[in-house]
Amino acid sequence: MSNVNRQWILRSRPKGMLAAGDLQLTEAPVPSPTDGQALAKVKYLSIDPTMRVWMAVDSYLPAVAIGEVMRAIGFAEVVESHHKGYKKGDKVIGLMSLQDYVILDGAEKRGLQKVPPVPFVSDTAFLGVLGGNGLTAYFGMMEIGKPQKGETLVVSAAAGATGSIAGQIGKIHGCRVVGIAGTDEKCKWITEDLGFDAAINYKHPDWKEKLAAATPKGIDINFENVGGEIMQEVLNRMNLFGRVVLCGLISGYTKGDPGLVSLGLILVKRLKVQGFIVLDFASRFMEAATQLGKWKMFGKLKDRETIVEGLEKAPDAINMLFTGGNIGKMIVKT
Amino acid sequence: MSNVNRQWILRSRPKGMLAAGDLQLTEAPVPSPTDGQALAKVKYLSIDPTMRVWMAVDSYLPAVAIGEVMRAIGFAEVVESHHKGYKKGDKVIGLMSLQDYVILDGAEKRGLQKVPPVPFVSDTAFLGVLGGNGLTAYFGMMEIGKPQKGETLVVSAAAGATGSIAGQIGKIHGCRVVGIAGTDEKCKWITEDLGFDAAINYKHPDWKEKLAAATPKGIDINFENVGGEIMQEVLNRMNLFGRVVLCGLISGYTKGDPGLVSLGLILVKRLKVQGFIVLDFASRFMEAATQLGKWKMFGKLKDRETIVEGLEKAPDAINMLFTGGNIGKMIVKT
Repeated sequence: MSNVNRQWILRSRPKGMLAAGDLQLTEAPVPSPTDGQALAKVKYLSIDPTMRVWMAVDSYLPAVAIGEVMRAIGFAEVVESHHKGYKKGDKVIGLMSLQDYVILDGAEKRGLQKVPPVPFVSDTAFLGVLGGNGLTAYFGMMEIGKPQKGETLVVSAAAGATGSIAGQIGKIHGCRVVGIAGTDEKCKWITEDLGFDAAINYKHPDWKEKLAAATPKGIDINFENVGGEIMQEVLNRMNLFGRVVLCGLISGYTKGDPGLVSLGLILVKRLKVQGFIVLDFASRFMEAATQLGKWKMFGKLKDRETIVEGLEKAPDAINMLFTGGNIGKMIVKT
Repeated sequence: MSNVNRQWILRSRPKGMLAAGDLQLTEAPVPSPTDGQALAKVKYLSIDPTMRVWMAVDSYLPAVAIGEVMRAIGFAEVVESHHKGYKKGDKVIGLMSLQDYVILDGAEKRGLQKVPPVPFVSDTAFLGVLGGNGLTAYFGMMEIGKPQKGETLVVSAAAGATGSIAGQIGKIHGCRVVGIAGTDEKCKWITEDLGFDAAINYKHPDWKEKLAAATPKGIDINFENVGGEIMQEVLNRMNLFGRVVLCGLISGYTKGDPGLVSLGLILVKRLKVQGFIVLDFASRFMEAATQLGKWKMFGKLKDRETIVEGLEKAPDAINMLFTGGNIGKMIVKT
């Protein structure tokens, strides 16, 4: 075990993409757990668009304070325990931060939970398909999207960790599913491997025509991760009584302007536009994870990971989310 | 019975408020009902903001064609019948038009229905509190707003036919209810007669401060009839998980721009913004009208009418909706 605990400290609130100096890598001694505490080694860190929001402004969680270790969801393994709830080797997921070690005390208070031993499931799956992204896709689709057989679902950022699962949940419920993504490789993955009915590369000049051709009966559900111009075009093609699952607005996170939606459109088309955060459904995580696990076991949910090796690369990994560099779940292996 | 059937013909699509010449008053012979038809005298016409939309653009109903008699919801009484479903004296409500007489044939096809004989209820109540406005307030509140005891409801155009009922439904469900209206007389009516907890005259320069003072716990439900700057201020004060019942956007009907809503606000506050049209709930009108009738009978719903005498004044009555000239239900008595 190293004596050094590397930590990424938030030094300034980024403008646009993260710049050198917004996060600073420092070294501190590995903390010593006292009585009633355990020490856990962070093995994997979940890299999510919402981290860019946490750096900038108070939102559904307070902004990370300048001078604090940057917040992240992580997967850690207990290496030393003086806490009756933990023993060495226990695995824990939840809200952690960009560093090598974390102290566990009153786990529940910090949104942490132990990972149950599940055969054939990788550690990283608990950060993605069976973790925050899977849960987000599940609750967004089931509670707001409410997919009905024969309906058309359009997912943006469709090759991302959440979008790829949302689309597959649409397929499980008998929808026609169209994904929007930013590279041909991503489009190939979601159609050929995940079974989406069509994929639109929005960087092709004729993407709007292709979206229209791929949604001949209009759009009933929009699982939205992006916002901006892409979303506007999807809204224009929404059917009466359509549902917009407002999950994320990544196009605005680096610009400070996540976009607007026309009230007249919502009224005339009788749309439901609803925002949500997966934490709102915390009391039902077990129900959802169980369902996601079953789907995964029966081959109905496939996932993919982009793993960046080395805690020192965390800021690059965050920026990759905004340049479209990842396919599937973006993870930093510390 | 007169031999003349006066009709308001749509001659041009208005820009802004109705101008002289947008509607033209003409005279035609009273139509003669043939076998399988009945002739009904239109007694009252419901004057609604949505008529301005019908004049301008295709929406949830096609725009009224240039040269057609202008569409309106009306109350009529059968004067001559050769249709087995009607007898002289029967009363009918539904989609009619701005004229003295209508021919009834296959009533259901045209959204018409016979008015049941209900004691102590005026004919005009079937156009307002027990008609389209009551039903609109009922379904908007019960299906989208879902008022819970102790929550705060803000209603715009609160002294209007729909808003005044929506607010009272909020009171019935134990909400703190704050109305926004444009005259002190309207504010007095909704607080002193209808039991709203507070009323804000948005024409007073300090209305935003007064709204803040009247909603110390924020706003959980916005029953929105107006849009624009008033709605923006209400949205700014919405609580997490708030519901926006998007019923109308009258501020935009004469400007062609019903406004925009920030996607970031919807996401961070996890709002639900949902548009609806009362016709979507047609299969449940009887259920709702029965409930509204009970509330009215037990004094829990009060209503008020602004009645303009004379079919020739219909265009003025429509414009009054946009200048705030009416309190409660606006009706033209032909």
